[in-house]
Amino acid sequence: MGDLTLFTYDWVPEPPRGFVRDLRVRWALEEAGLPYRVASVPFKDRGPEHFAHQPFGQVPWLTDGDLSIFESGAILLHLGELSDTLMPTDVQGQSDTKEWLFASLASVEAASQPWSFFKFSGDTDETPMRKFFDGFLHQHRLKHMETVLAEREWLAASFSVADILMADVLRLVDRFDGLAGYPACRDYVARATARPCFVKAHADQLAHFAAADGRTG
Amino acid sequence: MGDLTLFTYDWVPEPPRGFVRDLRVRWALEEAGLPYRVASVPFKDRGPEHFAHQPFGQVPWLTDGDLSIFESGAILLHLGELSDTLMPTDVQGQSDTKEWLFASLASVEAASQPWSFFKFSGDTDETPMRKFFDGFLHQHRLKHMETVLAEREWLAASFSVADILMADVLRLVDRFDGLAGYPACRDYVARATARPCFVKAHADQLAHFAAADGRTG
Repeated sequence: MGDLTLFTYDWVPEPPRGFVRDLRVRWALEEAGLPYRVASVPFKDRGPEHFAHQPFGQVPWLTDGDLSIFESGAILLHLGELSDTLMPTDVQGQSDTKEWLFASLASVEAASQPWSFFKFSGDTDETPMRKFFDGFLHQHRLKHMETVLAEREWLAASFSVADILMADVLRLVDRFDGLAGYPACRDYVARATARPCFVKAHADQLAHFAAADGRTG
Repeated sequence: MGDLTLFTYDWVPEPPRGFVRDLRVRWALEEAGLPYRVASVPFKDRGPEHFAHQPFGQVPWLTDGDLSIFESGAILLHLGELSDTLMPTDVQGQSDTKEWLFASLASVEAASQPWSFFKFSGDTDETPMRKFFDGFLHQHRLKHMETVLAEREWLAASFSVADILMADVLRLVDRFDGLAGYPACRDYVARATARPCFVKAHADQLAHFAAADGRTG
């Protein structure tokens, strides 16, 4: 393992604060007790150097010595492989963690993200497509996550990077009141976000962007 | 490694044939030259046994001895770790493969899937949300993938499971004519799908579902 540096924006507007995806990485680094530093890149002027590390011009990315890794899921997988506190050590537990890392993104967030775009737009027209995305999230994703989470404390045998990812995905659904009918999902988010390392990561992100207000205001 | 069994539906309607996600796994297994068998589960009546393996009631899942793995990305990662032909053997190449596995799903497919839902619905109303999803896919994803793919043959240093996933994601965009302005993306899809193992996997999927027509027709 080399020196770990997490790259995020120097500033973002108010609405996404507390939900920028560097939080997933901060949270994992705190849980693992790995030393890291945070570096900023401009939000408003994303240059070739930024795209060289993150081809879609987004954040976060992580450098670990000579390695540069983008995609929050890939970064969490990398950190899970570095630290026993972020992934079970047995084959079954590692397999469960990896499949739920992918499921958090490709099954749950892939459904919740378009749904949240509709919510965020403020558009409340009951169009067929709006109904479709609402039904897709509720009937094909949250209903089943409720069954899964009613039976277990964490997705794998112990708390893992998969929970960091899934809890962060469900937290955004909860922000738009999408978990009202899913008590096990809500309890899971509450359990995960009560962890001191989430609390610290969340406060650190807010402080990071607030500091930029001070510099430019 | 145990015995490998790929689970897919016994039958699907005509439109998704050739695009059901077991194809990603078939393709990888063919590339790796790993022996496997294909088992069917009912499309129309998905029971508790199905949900125990795939909590959203979808396909595919793969069993490897005692391990049962769902999510095409997680299955491809598992196979990539089994076979040198599916993932480079050096640290940088493995890291690149993993980040692009996640990027194929969480960045590209997360944008192309809602876009394809609009296309598939046949709804052509120029609503603000339709325009939003169209712009999101083109300006924030395909434009950047074009830059990436203009510079390289495969996503990592050699052909890998990341290419299986990305090519399959882009193939569905191409089906709805979404790659018309992206020659490097189209060339990439053509290059990937010209591989004999894709051709065999695709033909095998079509034959699998066609055989079910024969049994029930």
